[in-house]
Parts: sequence; C-alpha cells; structure tokens
Amino acid sequence: MTISFARGVPPPEALPVEELADCAREAVLRDGPTVLNYGPIGGYGPLREWVAERHDVEPQRVLLTNGSLQGISLLARELLRDSSRRVLVEAPTYDRPLKILGSLRAEVIAIRQDDDGLDVDALERELAQGGPAAFLYTIPTFQNPSGRTLSRERRQRLVDLAREHRLLVLEDDPYGLVRFDGSPPQTLFELAGGDGVLYMSSFSKIVSPGVRVAYLILPPELVRPIEESATQTYLTPSLLSQATVFEFLRRGNLEPNLERVRSLLCERRDAMLAALAATFPESARWSWPEGGYFLWLDLPEGVDAGDLLARAVEEGVSFVKGSDFYPEGRGGASAARLAYSFATPAEIAEGVGRLGRLLRLAPPLAVPV
Amino acid sequence: MTISFARGVPPPEALPVEELADCAREAVLRDGPTVLNYGPIGGYGPLREWVAERHDVEPQRVLLTNGSLQGISLLARELLRDSSRRVLVEAPTYDRPLKILGSLRAEVIAIRQDDDGLDVDALERELAQGGPAAFLYTIPTFQNPSGRTLSRERRQRLVDLAREHRLLVLEDDPYGLVRFDGSPPQTLFELAGGDGVLYMSSFSKIVSPGVRVAYLILPPELVRPIEESATQTYLTPSLLSQATVFEFLRRGNLEPNLERVRSLLCERRDAMLAALAATFPESARWSWPEGGYFLWLDLPEGVDAGDLLARAVEEGVSFVKGSDFYPEGRGGASAARLAYSFATPAEIAEGVGRLGRLLRLAPPLAVPV
Repeated sequence: MTISFARGVPPPEALPVEELADCAREAVLRDGPTVLNYGPIGGYGPLREWVAERHDVEPQRVLLTNGSLQGISLLARELLRDSSRRVLVEAPTYDRPLKILGSLRAEVIAIRQDDDGLDVDALERELAQGGPAAFLYTIPTFQNPSGRTLSRERRQRLVDLAREHRLLVLEDDPYGLVRFDGSPPQTLFELAGGDGVLYMSSFSKIVSPGVRVAYLILPPELVRPIEESATQTYLTPSLLSQATVFEFLRRGNLEPNLERVRSLLCERRDAMLAALAATFPESARWSWPEGGYFLWLDLPEGVDAGDLLARAVEEGVSFVKGSDFYPEGRGGASAARLAYSFATPAEIAEGVGRLGRLLRLAPPLAVPV
Repeated sequence: MTISFARGVPPPEALPVEELADCAREAVLRDGPTVLNYGPIGGYGPLREWVAERHDVEPQRVLLTNGSLQGISLLARELLRDSSRRVLVEAPTYDRPLKILGSLRAEVIAIRQDDDGLDVDALERELAQGGPAAFLYTIPTFQNPSGRTLSRERRQRLVDLAREHRLLVLEDDPYGLVRFDGSPPQTLFELAGGDGVLYMSSFSKIVSPGVRVAYLILPPELVRPIEESATQTYLTPSLLSQATVFEFLRRGNLEPNLERVRSLLCERRDAMLAALAATFPESARWSWPEGGYFLWLDLPEGVDAGDLLARAVEEGVSFVKGSDFYPEGRGGASAARLAYSFATPAEIAEGVGRLGRLLRLAPPLAVPV
C-alpha cells in the first residue's frame, strides 16, 4: 500500500466518531423543524452566533459555508466581478484557490515567501509598482503548502500596508488551532481590528472534514452580494451538519478534541522531522512547522520534483510536487509538499526513508541540462 | 401572522424528525471514518449506488450535490462554457435557474406552456428556426411554478425532437414522487433510454430539505468536467448528510414517509382548490396539480399581480407574482404562483378567501391603461 504524504487529510483516529454520532442525533431532536427545512443562507443561527462571539463581530457578518473552498469560490467570483482582475497570492500557495482563480481568468501575481512567511517587502514593491488588486489571498499560520507561519512583525506590516493601499486581505486560517509548539500570534483580522481583512476558517481540521462546515467573516458591504450569490448557488447550506457541529461545541467537546488532534499530529510532525534529518542528503532543506498538516521540502539542487515523484510512486510513496502550488506552475520545480497528517509515525519513517534513498541515486533524478 | 403561499417549503409536520435523528447517529456510528473525512466528489458511495440502481445506470454517472440548485449551477456554468449561449426554458419556469442563467449572461429563450405542459410545437419551431442551444431546462412533472405535468404524448415528442436536433435536455424532477392522483408517466430520461437527457432529482421534498442532498445523472461525457468543476467549487459534498439519507432509505423509511407527505399535501391542495372555487371570481383560472407543491393562477383580465400582491401583504397573505418566473419578467403580469405546501388547510381557506375578496375590489387592482 502506498504511503501517502500527498493529501492533507486528518488521520481516521482524529475523528470523534461517537461524539459526533450523538451530536447529530441530539441536534436533530432538539431543533428538527429548523434543522431539516430550508433556512437562512447565512447558516444555522446558533452556530453563526458562536462564531460571531468568538471573533467579536455581529452574527450577520458570518456566513457558514459548505466547506471553505465553497467560500473562496463565492468570494473570488464576486470580488473579480467588477474590479481589477489582479489577485495577489503568496507563492507557494494552496493549489485549489489557484485553480478557481485560473478558471475565472484572474491575473495572479505571486509574492515570494521565506521562512518567516510572505515577504512583505516584495508585497510593498508590488503594491507600489503594480496596478490595483482585487485582493490578497494569504494563509498566515501553518500555511498550506509550506507549513510556515508569518512572523509577528510581518503581520503588523502587512496589515499596515493593506490599510495604506486599501488592499482587501483574505485571511484563510483553517490550521491556526492545530498548534503544537509556541504561542499563537494575533490573526491579521485581529490586528486590523476586523477592518479590511476578510477572515475565513473551517471546522474541517478541528472537528471533521466530512461535515463540510466552514465560515467567512465578511466586511459589512460584502454581506449582501455574497449572500445573494450563495443563494443563487445552493439556496440553503447543510443545516444538519451545522447543527451537529454546534451541538459538539455546545457540549464543550472542542478543547478535548483539539488536545487529541494536536497530540496525534505533533507525533507525526516529529516523526517526519526526525526521518528527514536521519535519511535526507545535507543539501535538502525543509520547513519546521509549529502546527498544521504540512511541511515544505526544497530538494537538493538540480533534482526535479516530478521525476522524484514518478520514482517515489514506484516505491510506494506519494507527495505533491512543488510546482502545483505556484501560479501556472512557475516555481517549485525542485520542491515538494509533504503532508504528515495521514500516515502513521511508522509509515512516515518508512516513507521518508524511501525518499531519502531515492535522492541518493542522484543522476536519474537530476534535471536534464 | 402572514399566511404564506410564497415559498415552496414543506410543512414542519412532514419532516421525519425522530427517524432522521436516529439515522444520523447510526450513519456516523456505522461508517464514521468515511462519513467524517474528505471523500469522493461524487458523494457517499452507498447512496450513489442506491440512486444508480433506482435509475438503472452506472454509479459513476451519479453526482450527489448539496441540494439541486448546486447541481444546476455547476451544469449551467459548464454547459455554457464553450458552446452556444442560448438556453431554452419552458415559461413560466423555476425562478432560481433563471437567475443563474442571467448571471452567466445566457440568452434565455422562453417556450410557451399550456395545461399539458411545454408546447412541443413551439419547441419544434424554435429548434427549426433558432440557432443551436446549449440545453433545454424542463420540469415535466408538477412543474414549479405551474403545477402542470407534461402529457405522455408530448413527452414522447419532446424526446424525439431532442434526439433529432441533438438537443441536451435537463430534466429536473424533484416533485415526481409527491403524487396524489393519477399514475406516473415515464420520465423523459426513461423514454430516452437514458440517452441525451440529463436527469436530476432531490431528497428535499421526499425526506428533508435541510439535509441538502440532491443528485444528477450525468451523460458519460460530462462526468469528468462536472466532477472537476465540483471539486474546484466545494472539494467534497456533505457526506454526513448523504449517509444520513442513505440510512433512512436502507431502513425502508422512504415509502411510509412518502405516504405521510402525500397525504398532508393532498389535503392542502384540496383545500386550496376548494377555496379558489368558492371565493374567486369566475374570470380567474388556475391549474389543477396532481401532485407537488404549487398551483398557477391566471388572474381576471387586467389585474396586475404586483398590485394584488401589495394589497395582499397588507391583508396578511403572500404569494409570488407570475412575472418572477419569466425570463427578464417578460410574461405573467397577471398571474401568480400559489404554494399550498406550507400553510395549513384552515390557513389556506382563510388566505385564499382574503385574496378572493381583494379581487372583487377590481378597480384599484386593474392595470392602468
């Protein structure tokens, strides 16, 4: 069986099966006529209120969506409707929004990134020299795909720059609560006092992906157009799922569940870091995530990640090649995203070991010159 | 409190609260690691198989969506991508697809309708004289908004015409099983042997809308592009909901539930027909639905439905004016959709009575000449 470092999927052991089974039942029994009928496009009222309170906003600004990609899809469509077609992203970045932007024919501008996250100097240059942009899409904490976290100093500068240039920031934060080490920095949304930053998060990584419950906190002026667009797209979100998640939160299950998820994933992150250190050539580099699902790998110079992947699959190991996370594949040719979330620690040791052995067979993997 | 004939919402009494509560719990307990994680874009396997078997197709052709509007939205986007911008609809038709088509800047061609449903002669003329169309959108059974059903003879002609002109037909059939009288005609999909007709239905009207589970049966050549587009939009559908619906079906709850839904709604349809006959002026006409949620009202000549609605709302009665169901509002000025699904029989008698009284105050409601 293939050892998968490819998909950012939680381990089955992290899913609170029995608790969610009870919560689903209880949610329907408690509030059936609401949960089982058509309802407000914003989602299940009590869960909207829970989110609103947590982020100190009016519930009207919260839109619960069927997973966070649905939210990104609605936003991108709306924000590109009338304004600039230019969108700024950190590179590398989550591949699925890149595909959405591609299908909307956006002009995607990549801003470089280093170990401290998005390079705010590069952002500043782009804002000074480029035309106006519809928005910046960023995952500041435990980024997908890099596992990197934007430093505190850069967060403040990013928020200042955005304000100065009237740049709307989409802060995607599905991993923030899955932290193993260190203390959480403020979100961009918090730093900006809720102004000019559109915050989005999800229950996929902290409760369950299969419930498909995520949320947007919209700037007041976007509430109407995004709700209108959501109504045209799916009429009512999945209230059964949302009420199930609310029941889970109401019972106080979130913190104990987070403890379990963090401890499971931390063990896997550690296993991957240890295996990389033990088996990879010195010329390879990798990020050191303090949380989340992913780690970014810079392969030894000249090694093509696509070639390595082809060989790795033969050896029963999969990952995603770096170029998938760059607009039009322009970058990351010799990089890779490794997800440590799904494989067990033993599988991680074995899989990384196999990759390490392949990398020592340098010639067949080298880029043809 | 307003008596609402406006929204096509099931009565709370029709929702199988306790059964679905148990089914949700059982679905998660039985198959938690699958139901609670990311999964195939096509949806929960056992439910896909259930649908496939019922319609005698390969499960790969079934796409389970978060409600049927999500399916229409995906389809319209895909089908208008490269081909003709022209789309044929029966008029009046369901307003939400009209909005989707409008936002995609489709050229929407209205084909007239009478008591036997879509006028196939008018369709034939359009196919002969107009340019090629991307597809025809039709609800042949208990149509929204008219409550009309396409006759057997016309079904066969429609299927023949579509085949001859290579016209793709989108058959939307959410109400077919909610039949009170008469025997069900074959669906267009069945008549066409599954070829050239894209069939869609939903569990909203036969189980619960709040679970948001609907499905498309795709022509083989559309499976890949629609799945790709769905993946880009929401990654994974709501597996918790889909597994809950499957458990409901697996337990044999569908037939008893349908009996209950039919009997509740039939009583309401009867109440509305009786109240109309008793209180409306002779110059008004209405459709006589054998099932579904809606009835179509042609008001006495010269009465503007918008004016009537404004007065009705003051009297505590709401409905949707006919023009909302015509492309760009070009039609239905003196018509209305009445939903008999949500109000109780007593409310229906009262509400229709109020409308009847308003109609006898003819002058203030007459269209200015």
